[in-house]
Amino acid sequence: MAKLPKKTVERISQYRRVLAKYQTLSEPFIFSHDLASLLHLNPVQVRRDLMLLGTSGNYRNGYKVTKLLQSIDETLTIPKSTQATIIGMGRLGESLLKHIGSSPVCPVMINSTFDINPKKINTTIRGIPCYDMTRAPEIIKEQKIKIAILTLYTEDIQAIIDILIDAGIEGFINYMAGPIKIPKGIYLKEYDIRTTLEEMSYNIHN
Amino acid sequence: MAKLPKKTVERISQYRRVLAKYQTLSEPFIFSHDLASLLHLNPVQVRRDLMLLGTSGNYRNGYKVTKLLQSIDETLTIPKSTQATIIGMGRLGESLLKHIGSSPVCPVMINSTFDINPKKINTTIRGIPCYDMTRAPEIIKEQKIKIAILTLYTEDIQAIIDILIDAGIEGFINYMAGPIKIPKGIYLKEYDIRTTLEEMSYNIHN
Repeated sequence: MAKLPKKTVERISQYRRVLAKYQTLSEPFIFSHDLASLLHLNPVQVRRDLMLLGTSGNYRNGYKVTKLLQSIDETLTIPKSTQATIIGMGRLGESLLKHIGSSPVCPVMINSTFDINPKKINTTIRGIPCYDMTRAPEIIKEQKIKIAILTLYTEDIQAIIDILIDAGIEGFINYMAGPIKIPKGIYLKEYDIRTTLEEMSYNIHN
Repeated sequence: MAKLPKKTVERISQYRRVLAKYQTLSEPFIFSHDLASLLHLNPVQVRRDLMLLGTSGNYRNGYKVTKLLQSIDETLTIPKSTQATIIGMGRLGESLLKHIGSSPVCPVMINSTFDINPKKINTTIRGIPCYDMTRAPEIIKEQKIKIAILTLYTEDIQAIIDILIDAGIEGFINYMAGPIKIPKGIYLKEYDIRTTLEEMSYNIHN
């Protein structure tokens, strides 16, 4: 299958979550317009996305939910799931570990975490080992970790990012305020709540 | 001043954070191209943004940092700061409260939180009161709270959102997976890490 557009992947991931709930119904069929309405999307767009997945529904019943879920799984889930890590195991890091771990359909696995706090280093948090930050390059290489979730506040964030990219990280989710510089081909999602609050506050008042 | 475009507001908020650090230097001047480079932006764009703020630099020294910060504060900070609340005071809620509270320049104030856990209700967490969820409509109206940060997982999230909008909430930051339906004129920022992880994993492998 050709590489799907970014926005399509995002929507397909949302379809999966809605369909996973639907699956428990006694008649697990869904119409594209119902799926669209549940996610507040355009029905035409949803039908186009589902076509890209190679599934088709019928006029009487719509799409079979289990079949739809299966093709989404085949598209989104990489046979060998992606390894990810959390850098910074304070309250935020731990709550994210719990949240991600509780998701049955997520194709990403947190297999290690890192911190600088001696009380956390060499313990396991929710069953996942927490290592000394200084060991990050070695462990990331060894375990082929591809995604780093950054929850630590430090002035040296750029230095840490450069080291992590060298070790093999290809995607960052950053919960702290930037600025961060990443080279082409590396993915970055900013989850900086303070910038979001400022923006929202401005928009509400203007 | 006319309403600034969304992306401009986002950048101006980032300028402020970089400039706040610069302020402590002995020679607090900055060139637009240095500011651009620190944030990995186009220098032309930065100059355009600063012009919109009504500030000008000079060729020899660039922009005076304190003056620039002052005009950003005048633009972004509403005289009466925006009131916000966190719905759900688990680990994630508490870590966000700590993070937002530690920001000296954020024009948004968390003045209350809500939970359904009897152990948390009617206590104060980091100095901020935590109320019973059922009192949310009353307190949001009374205190003119405009932004709600959602960290709770519930099947009834839509019902809660409808109630919060009725009470006066105009902006949501949602840390849990949707789908959420919001009417026009209400702001929503999705911070759903599971969808982001799936997307990133797909992009890295394709």
